[in-house]
Amino acid sequence: MNKSHAGRETPKVTVDIIIEVLDWQENRKATALSDRWITFEESKIVLPGIVLIERSNEPQGVALPGGFVDIGERAIDAAVREALEETTLRVTNIKQFHTYTSPGRDPRGHGVTIVYIAQAIGKPKGEDDAKTAFIADPMNLQGLVEDLCFDHAQVIADYINYRLNGERPVTE
Amino acid sequence: MNKSHAGRETPKVTVDIIIEVLDWQENRKATALSDRWITFEESKIVLPGIVLIERSNEPQGVALPGGFVDIGERAIDAAVREALEETTLRVTNIKQFHTYTSPGRDPRGHGVTIVYIAQAIGKPKGEDDAKTAFIADPMNLQGLVEDLCFDHAQVIADYINYRLNGERPVTE
Repeated sequence: MNKSHAGRETPKVTVDIIIEVLDWQENRKATALSDRWITFEESKIVLPGIVLIERSNEPQGVALPGGFVDIGERAIDAAVREALEETTLRVTNIKQFHTYTSPGRDPRGHGVTIVYIAQAIGKPKGEDDAKTAFIADPMNLQGLVEDLCFDHAQVIADYINYRLNGERPVTE
Repeated sequence: MNKSHAGRETPKVTVDIIIEVLDWQENRKATALSDRWITFEESKIVLPGIVLIERSNEPQGVALPGGFVDIGERAIDAAVREALEETTLRVTNIKQFHTYTSPGRDPRGHGVTIVYIAQAIGKPKGEDDAKTAFIADPMNLQGLVEDLCFDHAQVIADYINYRLNGERPVTE
């Protein structure tokens, strides 16, 4: 730790947010991927629907809502801001889940992400950096898993394990 | 999110580590602050001793071991590395605790810190950025609280609440 703080190179900091849509049953078909609908198989539903977005920027694909933390901004505030900007949803009951730090997790360069879990009510709508925003069944992502950017397939798997078994991620 | 990843300014990333010394009773007087001894009041002991350091660099004071995460390094590896560099202890059973992100928490500039909890055996010895390393009773920090740098008084309070009540921090 010989370099000054300002000159020190560290990973970038982002946030991602898992938004559980409490009235997802009414809103699940309100939005969808631009090229296909997301369907829920009623018999298999265990957890509420969560919000995913189609990214406008690189890397292209599907992801949890999120973005960079600004200097001077708390990460929790960045997560609330990004949720609103990208999905138009105002989230509530937001809690920190886990921080992911693997160097390979972001193809743009090394970035750590602080992941939050929150709830919202209503129909997500893709805006800002999101082409679309839609509700997906986390336990039945169908063909979406291959489209998930970053380490978000792992994050969602960890989230499911946490909700079903109460176990926190051991990743990192 | 219009700027490229490389040009994006975000907070710096550090790690801090709470090292529970399993054989602290044998080692508690092995090291101490340079100007005074840390004493344990046997009757009040509830949690194992944890390792603190006296910082060589600014800000001067007492702190949990820790430091900057390097580009290309996982945060957990940075925490293990800093523990070894600053205290000579090889930690085991390391787990992520919580990430602290308030803009005011680091006087050098906005930095987020990912805090880990781990265990170790042996006598800590201050090296590298640590003038001294010593074992303190987290529930009886005596005059040390005023010397604690960053938000480490809050981190230790959250750690105590977690160990005693199983509650995770709500601080962001």
